[in-house]
Amino acid sequence: MLNVGIVGAAGYAGAELVRLILQHPHFNLVAITSNAYSGKQLSELYPSFIGLSNLIFLNHNDPNLHSCDIVFLATPHTVAMKMAPELLKQNISVIDLSADFRLKDQRIYEKWYSVEHCSPKLLSTAYFGLPEIFPNELQTASRDFKNNKAVLVACAGCYPTASSLAAIPIIDLTQGMVVVDAISGLSGAGRNNNDRTRFCSASDNFEAYGVLSHRHTPEIEQILNISNRLVFTPHLAPASRGLLSTVTMQLKENTALSLDNLYQKYCEYFSSSFFVHVLPKGNQPKTLSVIGTNQAHIGIACDDQRGIVVATCAIDNLLKGAAGQAIQCANIICGFDANVALTSIANPM
Amino acid sequence: MLNVGIVGAAGYAGAELVRLILQHPHFNLVAITSNAYSGKQLSELYPSFIGLSNLIFLNHNDPNLHSCDIVFLATPHTVAMKMAPELLKQNISVIDLSADFRLKDQRIYEKWYSVEHCSPKLLSTAYFGLPEIFPNELQTASRDFKNNKAVLVACAGCYPTASSLAAIPIIDLTQGMVVVDAISGLSGAGRNNNDRTRFCSASDNFEAYGVLSHRHTPEIEQILNISNRLVFTPHLAPASRGLLSTVTMQLKENTALSLDNLYQKYCEYFSSSFFVHVLPKGNQPKTLSVIGTNQAHIGIACDDQRGIVVATCAIDNLLKGAAGQAIQCANIICGFDANVALTSIANPM
Amino acid sequence: MLNVGIVGAAGYAGAELVRLILQHPHFNLVAITSNAYSGKQLSELYPSFIGLSNLIFLNHNDPNLHSCDIVFLATPHTVAMKMAPELLKQNISVIDLSADFRLKDQRIYEKWYSVEHCSPKLLSTAYFGLPEIFPNELQTASRDFKNNKAVLVACAGCYPTASSLAAIPIIDLTQGMVVVDAISGLSGAGRNNNDRTRFCSASDNFEAYGVLSHRHTPEIEQILNISNRLVFTPHLAPASRGLLSTVTMQLKENTALSLDNLYQKYCEYFSSSFFVHVLPKGNQPKTLSVIGTNQAHIGIACDDQRGIVVATCAIDNLLKGAAGQAIQCANIICGFDANVALTSIANPM
Amino acid sequence: MLNVGIVGAAGYAGAELVRLILQHPHFNLVAITSNAYSGKQLSELYPSFIGLSNLIFLNHNDPNLHSCDIVFLATPHTVAMKMAPELLKQNISVIDLSADFRLKDQRIYEKWYSVEHCSPKLLSTAYFGLPEIFPNELQTASRDFKNNKAVLVACAGCYPTASSLAAIPIIDLTQGMVVVDAISGLSGAGRNNNDRTRFCSASDNFEAYGVLSHRHTPEIEQILNISNRLVFTPHLAPASRGLLSTVTMQLKENTALSLDNLYQKYCEYFSSSFFVHVLPKGNQPKTLSVIGTNQAHIGIACDDQRGIVVATCAIDNLLKGAAGQAIQCANIICGFDANVALTSIANPM
Repeated sequence: MLNVGIVGAAGYAGAELVRLILQHPHFNLVAITSNAYSGKQLSELYPSFIGLSNLIFLNHNDPNLHSCDIVFLATPHTVAMKMAPELLKQNISVIDLSADFRLKDQRIYEKWYSVEHCSPKLLSTAYFGLPEIFPNELQTASRDFKNNKAVLVACAGCYPTASSLAAIPIIDLTQGMVVVDAISGLSGAGRNNNDRTRFCSASDNFEAYGVLSHRHTPEIEQILNISNRLVFTPHLAPASRGLLSTVTMQLKENTALSLDNLYQKYCEYFSSSFFVHVLPKGNQPKTLSVIGTNQAHIGIACDDQRGIVVATCAIDNLLKGAAGQAIQCANIICGFDANVALTSIANPM
Repeated sequence: MLNVGIVGAAGYAGAELVRLILQHPHFNLVAITSNAYSGKQLSELYPSFIGLSNLIFLNHNDPNLHSCDIVFLATPHTVAMKMAPELLKQNISVIDLSADFRLKDQRIYEKWYSVEHCSPKLLSTAYFGLPEIFPNELQTASRDFKNNKAVLVACAGCYPTASSLAAIPIIDLTQGMVVVDAISGLSGAGRNNNDRTRFCSASDNFEAYGVLSHRHTPEIEQILNISNRLVFTPHLAPASRGLLSTVTMQLKENTALSLDNLYQKYCEYFSSSFFVHVLPKGNQPKTLSVIGTNQAHIGIACDDQRGIVVATCAIDNLLKGAAGQAIQCANIICGFDANVALTSIANPM
Repeated sequence: MLNVGIVGAAGYAGAELVRLILQHPHFNLVAITSNAYSGKQLSELYPSFIGLSNLIFLNHNDPNLHSCDIVFLATPHTVAMKMAPELLKQNISVIDLSADFRLKDQRIYEKWYSVEHCSPKLLSTAYFGLPEIFPNELQTASRDFKNNKAVLVACAGCYPTASSLAAIPIIDLTQGMVVVDAISGLSGAGRNNNDRTRFCSASDNFEAYGVLSHRHTPEIEQILNISNRLVFTPHLAPASRGLLSTVTMQLKENTALSLDNLYQKYCEYFSSSFFVHVLPKGNQPKTLSVIGTNQAHIGIACDDQRGIVVATCAIDNLLKGAAGQAIQCANIICGFDANVALTSIANPM
Repeated sequence: MLNVGIVGAAGYAGAELVRLILQHPHFNLVAITSNAYSGKQLSELYPSFIGLSNLIFLNHNDPNLHSCDIVFLATPHTVAMKMAPELLKQNISVIDLSADFRLKDQRIYEKWYSVEHCSPKLLSTAYFGLPEIFPNELQTASRDFKNNKAVLVACAGCYPTASSLAAIPIIDLTQGMVVVDAISGLSGAGRNNNDRTRFCSASDNFEAYGVLSHRHTPEIEQILNISNRLVFTPHLAPASRGLLSTVTMQLKENTALSLDNLYQKYCEYFSSSFFVHVLPKGNQPKTLSVIGTNQAHIGIACDDQRGIVVATCAIDNLLKGAAGQAIQCANIICGFDANVALTSIANPM
């Protein structure tokens, strides 16, 4: 058993981490923190836990964290870059769910997040947590961890995860504009009460936001290794969870790709993945089929006359897009099966 | 490992049984049936199972069922009363999720369901499946099962489960009208396509139905052992899952009961239950906190001046109200912990 | 043309008043106020008005209000009792949508609202605004208004309106407990951002609240002229609008009432109403069919063996339950047809 | 007063036409037809009309239609091309909401709709009904109508309307791929009961459909006068109504366009429109703000470094996307103000 802690456990991703870790056979949850709710019962904030957990929120600086082998940081950006160095110094591995260590280039981080990075040296040592695309990162991290060296993992964001999974198998065959239009459920906006997250203003409503300015833009470009080619428009639609990314790409001239070829390429790319499933030709993913799970469903279509590919990917934004992916990364660095505590099947509807 | 089968696996309760049994450590799922979809892939109907199960629907009369130790019947009423006798004869235990064996009195069944009962003798031998209220039924069934005698369990319905859990601890202290107004999500209407279940007619809509005529009325009266006292009005509201039952009761004259007394009575009644939780005084259950689980949350309030008690109970209609309860019953008769495969925690929102 | 103003126009009921009055042929909207948003464009808060109105929020104490013939108060309770006396003194009629002048008995107001009433004398002179049940109140008010005497109308609340319409035709024939279980959409909680109104905590959720303590309890009892007989439990379900009230009543002994009798009684009671419709026997009202309108749909059912009546009523909580009713009252006191600006038909779904 | 009739009045667009025409001061509704529901009350199918209309569905071939000045066809494609010639011969003008006469090129129609066109000659004489983009078409139709010549108007579809309004002001300045990702509410799928429109499968779900094969593709290309440049992907999200189209375009090389220029171009293009509003820079349209109305809200954003424009448009798919647009077209050909019976404001939320 490894001792683990969660910083920022009162947010949606943090609370999902609690839920997953309580059911994890190899992780012992020794501390959950929230500066805003310290002293409160977890079950008071989230009645799902009534009768199932007596955990109480501690402060972010609670000494219990120091007894952890691994600490998950589920805090807004800027918190992790302050807390990670100290934890690593104490030889505690850090799985960061925020954006603080995702971008390799400090200037790009500072430009998009409008804040100075206070731990820039860690940017190069952080492992990127999107195991299906960067398996080596996590394998190396696992070796470090086994050698008793604390590691820092920067998990991919929700939109970058879905969008990159949809595009990666063929991105190198494409040219020109890559258009990502994505739809997210309201939990993507976090456990915040404002005019956008109020039921009456979100229900019955579709809306684009962050148009041409969303911070996941440079992250998707970094993952796909493209530059100035992405146009990313996220949308909100009335569901609590679920994220669907629709990626439109143009094949390079002289690149012919039938739907069969395409399907094969995608299947091959994800052949060893427990979580990513390429749907049969002609099928489109439903977010409903992955909600509550760490699964990703991918649908593909192509117009081979014009060399156009439209690939879609559905995930649960709080699981494969946040807490589930973090556990997946933690499992890998610990040497467990990637799917420990992540085998749930979506309610069949 | 016990071999189990599911008849009627294409419906919502049946598909939930598949999901739960696939994750059950002691049950081996050898057959799922659906006359309407036989030959089809489970994952085609329910994409939640893509990549996680290759099961194919068989016919209800498939011989694979005969190799089962236990068969779950998740079919509309009238099917179970035809299939159960044959299965029992083959020494296969039957967990019936339908209404066919719930009512002890054949005349009441025939009156409310407008159909002749073709296996009336089994009515008296069927064990009633609502373990928190009738623990002895399941214990006796468990003894039979251990002695290699096939048993028939008639699981309580969704409204009866929630309504009875809310009322049972004090029903004997009450008199006069017992008013149950309950709200269910649309999955209570099954996986049927009609004018009531269409998104555009169900969304943004609240509506009572089956007023003074719903078939769960005699079942609730039987469980609570009351006669002609119940007024039951079910409602639909726009959610897929979740059932909230609000029970208004009047205490007998000369029965004083403070909120503290009341709270204590409820806590005592459910003290040994893993699934039923009485919320702290002043709190009301949210269906959101039990969706996807076999949990039941109960809230209580009283006006001790007037001797009025209002008790509420939230469950997932497809789990504690159907498939979850069936697995709970099966676990008990098999001698397993009641909560095997039923430990999931609702997504914290 | 009459000059009218709206105090508290930034809330949901206030904004609906703006919408209705902008389309009213005899009302000229000269001032909308909001202390929180004064100086802001109406269309910035509510983009529905983009291109259709350039109104800007003023302060509650803006002198423009003094030029009004009628002022609508759509403010939280305690505001109206402070503002009404001054407006009336300036011979401006006041249509109050809050609870401040609804309860005739000052002590009951102060007990349920936990605040001292600062204009208790107006309680006896206020006309009660629920025209279908108290037509004489509004007729008298209309006479005063015609005689150039400023009047104060206290419009009924949302739950009281629906619940009373469902019960009034037969309440005098009943005895014992009157159980009202009602379901409201989230706009009933106002335009407030909190843990209850957040999309992710309200979506997919049913929940009772204010159990045995909701402030509409004494108001319903006053309207129905019953005492200590009401048990009122409001619930929230995931829709923005709509309110369904289910009222369970017991007939007095020796009162026989067939469904036909009952239906006739209801039809007679509402025979002259443009807004209230008794549905054909066997039909139940859908909130969806009245959303966006000032209509009320009523369904009735009875068990004549036991002398039980279950009556249901569906309204739009912000229209017949608030702004629509206020316009209806204003129309009547001005001598217009009751339905001026209130003839919209719900979107057929 | 003109006599009008509606063929296919039982569908969602047809029922909206009924609602609008009942409130139209110059149209007298003499016949509504539905082959499936002939003989049934309108209010039975759509309880919104209870107490407000006693209309009964007639058959499509009812002689009452012959007394009409204008007939609206709200039927699935292939019906209009059969009915229109006969009606026109009787000098009855036809406003067709279906796709039958939208595409000018018979071969394109037959390719995308996989059916032979039986009235191909009418394709060239039909006026296209999207008044903001093709004002001359309707003006010419109006002249014909005034001269007592029956006209045929082919109203634009829902996706084409929103997508074209978003793109038209600058489409001539763009080159390369035009990517349209749109989200529609479930009413876009019509009043049909199937696995896609069932509440439980549509709620909590986002899903693309008709990827690279949706029939609105050639219609959008025709309106925008582009060829083989469009990639159109429609999506469903859980709302009854509302349609948001997000259009990503690339400016031609050497075409510089600041956000200010862009904003001005859009404002100019729609300067004379009552229904289309370009939102202030930085704002994005919400479908919630146009539901229940004939309004269209447009949002624009640009990346002038890269020459990328993202324009979004929100409409009510059943109004500006269907019935509202049809009335707008009818108003214009009759010489009325375009907005007669179309002045409703969305419920402010």
